Amino acid sequence: MSTQSLLERRFRVLGKHSPLFYDKPLQLVRGEGVWLYDAEGKRYLDAYNNVPHVGHCHPRVVDALCRQAHALNTHTRYLDDTVVTYAERLLSTFDKSLSNVFFCCTGTEANELALRIARECTGGQGIISTAHAYHGNSAAVAQISTLFTPPEKRGPFIRTIPVLDPYRERRGRDDETLSTAYAQDVQKAVDDFARNGVKFAGLLICTAFSSEGLPTVPRGYLAKVVKIVHDAGGVFIADEVQAGFGRFGSHMWGHQVLGATPDIVTMGKPMGNGHPLAGVVARADLVEQFTSQNMYFNTFGGNAVSAAVGLAVLDVLQEERLLENARIVGEYVIAGLRKLQTKHALIGDVRGAGLFFAVEIVRDRTTQEPAPAETKRIVNGMRERGVLISRIGIHDNILKIRPPMPFSTGNADLLLKTLDDLMTSL
Amino acid sequence: MSTQSLLERRFRVLGKHSPLFYDKPLQLVRGEGVWLYDAEGKRYLDAYNNVPHVGHCHPRVVDALCRQAHALNTHTRYLDDTVVTYAERLLSTFDKSLSNVFFCCTGTEANELALRIARECTGGQGIISTAHAYHGNSAAVAQISTLFTPPEKRGPFIRTIPVLDPYRERRGRDDETLSTAYAQDVQKAVDDFARNGVKFAGLLICTAFSSEGLPTVPRGYLAKVVKIVHDAGGVFIADEVQAGFGRFGSHMWGHQVLGATPDIVTMGKPMGNGHPLAGVVARADLVEQFTSQNMYFNTFGGNAVSAAVGLAVLDVLQEERLLENARIVGEYVIAGLRKLQTKHALIGDVRGAGLFFAVEIVRDRTTQEPAPAETKRIVNGMRERGVLISRIGIHDNILKIRPPMPFSTGNADLLLKTLDDLMTSL
Repeated sequence: MSTQSLLERRFRVLGKHSPLFYDKPLQLVRGEGVWLYDAEGKRYLDAYNNVPHVGHCHPRVVDALCRQAHALNTHTRYLDDTVVTYAERLLSTFDKSLSNVFFCCTGTEANELALRIARECTGGQGIISTAHAYHGNSAAVAQISTLFTPPEKRGPFIRTIPVLDPYRERRGRDDETLSTAYAQDVQKAVDDFARNGVKFAGLLICTAFSSEGLPTVPRGYLAKVVKIVHDAGGVFIADEVQAGFGRFGSHMWGHQVLGATPDIVTMGKPMGNGHPLAGVVARADLVEQFTSQNMYFNTFGGNAVSAAVGLAVLDVLQEERLLENARIVGEYVIAGLRKLQTKHALIGDVRGAGLFFAVEIVRDRTTQEPAPAETKRIVNGMRERGVLISRIGIHDNILKIRPPMPFSTGNADLLLKTLDDLMTSL
Repeated sequence: MSTQSLLERRFRVLGKHSPLFYDKPLQLVRGEGVWLYDAEGKRYLDAYNNVPHVGHCHPRVVDALCRQAHALNTHTRYLDDTVVTYAERLLSTFDKSLSNVFFCCTGTEANELALRIARECTGGQGIISTAHAYHGNSAAVAQISTLFTPPEKRGPFIRTIPVLDPYRERRGRDDETLSTAYAQDVQKAVDDFARNGVKFAGLLICTAFSSEGLPTVPRGYLAKVVKIVHDAGGVFIADEVQAGFGRFGSHMWGHQVLGATPDIVTMGKPMGNGHPLAGVVARADLVEQFTSQNMYFNTFGGNAVSAAVGLAVLDVLQEERLLENARIVGEYVIAGLRKLQTKHALIGDVRGAGLFFAVEIVRDRTTQEPAPAETKRIVNGMRERGVLISRIGIHDNILKIRPPMPFSTGNADLLLKTLDDLMTSL
């Protein structure tokens, strides 16, 4: 079966717009750790996928999946020790104020539920998100997924704050000045709701600002933002789908890195290492208020198999010291990318933490003019050379490098050398 | 670990309102075929759960899950033969006009997407559902989940039709007369939208009317309804979460039983036998129109593992002739329930098809007055005696019996005898 004929069969049943990666789509047949293999046996270094968080097909996680799937797979309308134990383990990684959890299946479902809780508990409708965000695919969540939903389709209850871009906007300001300036954007959105008679419900942001381009957030920013949100009667929802489960190495959650405690936290992708598992962690008083008025049940959410898988992911993170690995290898990659920056004029900025990196590709370092065409060529060129990465940002000019957590310095060497060779040949 | 202390731990982390079955919740540890086992080793006949459609922990399905989870688990942004093959197999069970599929993870996600497609493609917002429906837990889907969402929380774009109740409302009318009368409710809802300046988008109903009480739908009803919907410029969305995958024995899909072709079909629960897998099947022109304007991607939806599981479920349904089994055993159960009806005055009506049965519990057969307290006692009494069933309907007085598809005549004998003994002792 050739890739071309598979592509044609796919178009017939999934339609022509179902998203595919790369100019030349990749047909995969096997995954192991940080490696993926295509139908011709060619090996790819995965420096992109965060879903296989502890590595593709991690034996410990797959064994937990299979063991539980052989024994029992029912929902939370029955009592089950596994799901309660998992809930306790997961909650132990949060601030004590975040003491309740809902399990669901996708990040979209998690953000849907978070928005319902925020709106029910505040009595407001107004939600603030950023101007280039992606949070999921349901009607309510699409309204704040401003990356794909134009303003005229967002309805009257959404306001956006501009994307943080300290690379272009710092202009010599220190963190205190810059964070105060950025936080004022949130105050402006709050004020705009008030002017238009829309009661404010809350702010929902990705704590990595991933789609926005992984900006280096100025110290103190999030605490200032949360104060504005709380003073206006809203709740702060941290979308941890990208930053969560130790991606940044220093902490388990992105909001802990940024130094503020949310009222509601949503999580997804890495949670089940590929198994459809997501969750909402929230203050118990919000959960009580919401569930006393609204029945929430998710058939597959927190079923016995999902809980066993989630537990195994937490076990592997801890036993293989993957947060520590993210810190060590992350610093190694950042140093390597900075070295490439001295050699390749196209690299305008290198930033990131743990195992999440952004490389700004620019036409000119002085004007900082984005270079989206070159960025696309690099992403496709890397794929041809056997390394998988992608791109993000409002100008589509930022290389997105976000490998599975067991990424080693050896893997980093291959990533850096391939990028160096490719950029030399451009 | 006692069940009581597990319950207390659960309350602390999942909250007190997370739904549980039965007055005395059940702690399960193992499942096999139609059997479930609790923490004390007590065995229960599962005559309720439709998620383990081909039987709890079916070895063929679990093996497919494990084999694929060991090899590769990535999303549909890469090409994968398994997901395309599964899409082709699934679509082959529908009318030719329904030629495209989206994969997602839950019935909620499927109905969310169906509503988005209906609204985008018609340019309307108005949706008709029934007055006692459950379709899922997101904001948009909760609006049509009228069982839990009171009218004041449904917003301006929802109209409902009364629940079909031929048991009480037939009054000697033949199917032609009754179906015409019922279809008029849809026309009234369409007219009400027009009067209020709301552009009509479509009708979304469960093709089993499961939460509504599994009424015996008069012949010709659905075709009349679909004509009204199409004449008004709307689309017909069939929610097959309950009726789908051969539940009724005679056909693969509920809309085929009722004799009409939808524009969009949603499916969930039984699709992955417990694995979080759901889907939307639709006309290719609707999919093209929607996806050319809106990016839809579902990270876990149709991943390689989900597709392998979905294929295995289709294989087992076919190879174990489970639709045929549903027809044969279903007739046997209906006959047995009718025999119990002659003996127990509380049984007002027995209805159903395939392996989905409704038993109306009434105070008086002449007045047909519902007996919800007795119904609850029967459901809890059956659980004490080792048989799991539940209840549905606007009066909460209908026993819901819906076992996994490999349910045998021997299992049926146990179900019927236990119900007989219990009702004799009431």
